[in-house]
Amino acid sequence: MSITAPRGFRAAGVVAGLKDSGSRDLALVVNDGPSRAAAGVFTRNRVKAAPVLWSEQVLKGGRVHAVVLNSGGANACTGAPGFQDTHATAERVAEVLGDSAGEVAVCSTGLIGERLPMDALLPGIGKAAAELSRGDGGLAAADAIRTTDTVGKISFRHGAGGYMIGAMAKGAGMLAPSLATMLCVITTDADLPAAALDRALRSATALTLDRLDADGCMSTNDTVLLMASAAAGVVPDEDEFTALLTDVCADLTRQLLVDAEGASKAIAIEVVGAAADADAVAVGRSIARNNLLKCAIHGEDPNWGRVLSAVGTTDAVFDPDQLNVAINGVWVCRNGSSGDDRDKVDLRPRDVTITVDLSAGPHSATVWTTDLTADYVHENSAYST
Amino acid sequence: MSITAPRGFRAAGVVAGLKDSGSRDLALVVNDGPSRAAAGVFTRNRVKAAPVLWSEQVLKGGRVHAVVLNSGGANACTGAPGFQDTHATAERVAEVLGDSAGEVAVCSTGLIGERLPMDALLPGIGKAAAELSRGDGGLAAADAIRTTDTVGKISFRHGAGGYMIGAMAKGAGMLAPSLATMLCVITTDADLPAAALDRALRSATALTLDRLDADGCMSTNDTVLLMASAAAGVVPDEDEFTALLTDVCADLTRQLLVDAEGASKAIAIEVVGAAADADAVAVGRSIARNNLLKCAIHGEDPNWGRVLSAVGTTDAVFDPDQLNVAINGVWVCRNGSSGDDRDKVDLRPRDVTITVDLSAGPHSATVWTTDLTADYVHENSAYST
Repeated sequence: MSITAPRGFRAAGVVAGLKDSGSRDLALVVNDGPSRAAAGVFTRNRVKAAPVLWSEQVLKGGRVHAVVLNSGGANACTGAPGFQDTHATAERVAEVLGDSAGEVAVCSTGLIGERLPMDALLPGIGKAAAELSRGDGGLAAADAIRTTDTVGKISFRHGAGGYMIGAMAKGAGMLAPSLATMLCVITTDADLPAAALDRALRSATALTLDRLDADGCMSTNDTVLLMASAAAGVVPDEDEFTALLTDVCADLTRQLLVDAEGASKAIAIEVVGAAADADAVAVGRSIARNNLLKCAIHGEDPNWGRVLSAVGTTDAVFDPDQLNVAINGVWVCRNGSSGDDRDKVDLRPRDVTITVDLSAGPHSATVWTTDLTADYVHENSAYST
Repeated sequence: MSITAPRGFRAAGVVAGLKDSGSRDLALVVNDGPSRAAAGVFTRNRVKAAPVLWSEQVLKGGRVHAVVLNSGGANACTGAPGFQDTHATAERVAEVLGDSAGEVAVCSTGLIGERLPMDALLPGIGKAAAELSRGDGGLAAADAIRTTDTVGKISFRHGAGGYMIGAMAKGAGMLAPSLATMLCVITTDADLPAAALDRALRSATALTLDRLDADGCMSTNDTVLLMASAAAGVVPDEDEFTALLTDVCADLTRQLLVDAEGASKAIAIEVVGAAADADAVAVGRSIARNNLLKCAIHGEDPNWGRVLSAVGTTDAVFDPDQLNVAINGVWVCRNGSSGDDRDKVDLRPRDVTITVDLSAGPHSATVWTTDLTADYVHENSAYST
C-alpha cells in the first residue's frame, strides 16, 4: 500500500549496493497516469544537493512521470560531477521507461560530500524497474529510503468519491524547518492540475512537516513530492483534498517525530494567545531549539524558566509579566512567575505537551520537537565514521 | 588581585547560606573612588531577571558605588516580589556603606523561577561588608559567584602610565550571544568618564564575550559591569584603553570557553572572505549552533558537510560552489565539494579551529563554541533536581 494505494502507481525498492549493510537502498516510483500532474517543496537551505537542484527544475514543468530515490549518499556538496551523476540517474530512469528525463525527479539521502557509486546505482535502476509493482512495491520503496530510520514511514487515506492519497517518508535526524532531512513522496489518483496540487502541498506541509524541528538543523536534501495520476477519475473539491493531504502529512510528521534519532520524548509545543500566527511559530521554534530545555525534558524536569528564557529571545508580541506556561496540563508558570506546584507535573510518559500562553491575541500554532539525549549525541558523533 | 588589582577597589566573597553546598555564594565589590564612573551591558533577552531590570536603571546614571552579586538563585521570573527582593538587597548594601541604593548594582545567578532566601542574603551583606579587602577579597569574590563553574575566572592587565584593569567572571553554561549566563565585573583605576567607559565596554564585549556561543541559549541574567575609580590618576588614551579592555575580555572569554558545561572541545570558528562583518558573525553563529556538527566534532569526525549545511541556512553573501572549509588547517572542502584528504585532520587536541572562507569579500570574524557531549546532556538534565 502506501504510495501504491492510489491507482496508477507502481513502485519498487531494491538493493543496488550503495549501503555497506546490504540493505535496500534504491526506490523507484512510477506514475502510469493518465495524468502526470505534480508539485514539490524543497529545502530552503542555500546549499542544495544536486538532486534538489535537478528536481526543482523538473517540478517547474508541473509533471512527473517517475521519481527515483536513493539512500546511502546525499549527493550534496559534490559540485558539477555530482550534478552530472544526478542527471545520469534521471536519464537511466527515462531510458528504462522509454521517456524523457525531463519528467524524472531524483532524491538522495545519506552522507554529505561524497560521490555516489554510479556503477552500483545505475544497474540498480534496471533492477528496480523490473520489480515495479502495485503490491509489495510500495512497502519495499519505503524501506529502501531509510537511513537511520528504525522503521519505514507510510500513510494512506480515502477521499470522498473514491480517490485515495498514499505516502512514504524517511527522516530521523536533521529534522528542521523547511522540512528536515526528509524525503517524502505522496501519491493520489485524484484528478487535480499541478497548480492546485502545489497550493494544497504548500498549505499542508506548512502546518505539519514544516513545523517538526527535532534538532534545528536544516538539510541540503529535503524534498516532498506530490504526484497525481487521475486514475480514479475523481475531481475532488480542492479544500477537501487539502484537508485530507494535511491529515496524511500530519500522520507522517508524527511518525518522523517518534522515530527521531536518539529521542526519548516526543514534545508538542502549543503556543496560544499569540498576536499573529508568525509569532506563535517563532516562539514554538525558539523553544524547540533550546538545548537546555530539551535536556531538562529528557531529565523529566519541568523547568519552565528555560521556556521563558526561550520566549524572551523572540520578537513576538508579549509582556514578560503575562506569560503562562503549562507542562503536561499543569500551569507551572502564571503571569511570568511561579504558578502551580511543579511536583504535580508527570513527565514520565513519552508524549510531552508544553503550552505557552502569550496573552497577546487569538492566534496559535503547534511545533513538534524531541528531547536532547546522550543517545542523540552518540548517534551523531559516530555517523560518518 | 583580579578586581582588586586596580587601586580604589575592595571586595569580599562570603557564605550567606544560599547554596545547599555551603560554598561561598555572596560577593561584594566596592569602588572607593575618587571616581564612580561606570558602564554596563546586559542580556538582550526580553525576559530579564529582577537584578538586570534594577541594574539597568542604576547604570543609566553612569555611576556605581558598589555591586553585590549572589549565586544560588537567578531571581528571574519572580515577578514584583522578586524585584522588591533586589531592591531590598541594594538598600542593605547602601545601608552598610552609608550611601544611597541608587548607585548599587545587583547581579544574581542560579536557577530561574524561585525567590531568593532573603533571610540568608541580607545578613550575608553585612558579613561581606565586614570582610572587604584588597588582598584576598578579589579571589573570594570570584569564587562566590561560581555556579557550575569548576574554577573562578579572573584576569588583570597593566596599562600604559601605571593604571590597571582587573576582572572576574562566571558562566559555564547557557553561554550565548548577548553575553550568556555570564556575570562579569571589570574594574580599573584609570580615569575615564562614563560615556568613554560605555563605548570601550561595548566595543570590547562585541568582539569577545558576545561571540562566545556555547549552546545557543540566551540567559535572563547576563551582566557585564565596568567600574572606574580613577585612583591611579591616569587618563588613558581611549583607544589604548579599549584595546587593553578587549584583551581582558578575550582572556575571560577563553576561560569561560574552556570551562563550559560538559564540553570536551574548545572550538574557534573563523569566518573569512565575508562581504561584511555581520555576514561573518551570522555564519559563525549558525555553525556554532549546529548540534549535528557539534556532535561530529565531539566524535572527532571532520564532517565538513555539516559546516556547509549550517552556512546554507544564513542570509550571508556567498556562492555555494565557492565555499572552502578547513578543519585544524586541512582544507577538507574546496569550492563547495570535497577537498584535501579528511584523514589528514587531527581532531584529538582539545582546541579545534574551523575556518570557513566565503570567497565573498575582505571581512572576517571569530565565534567560539564547544562540542555537544553526553556530559552536557547529563549536567543539564539534572540541574534543578
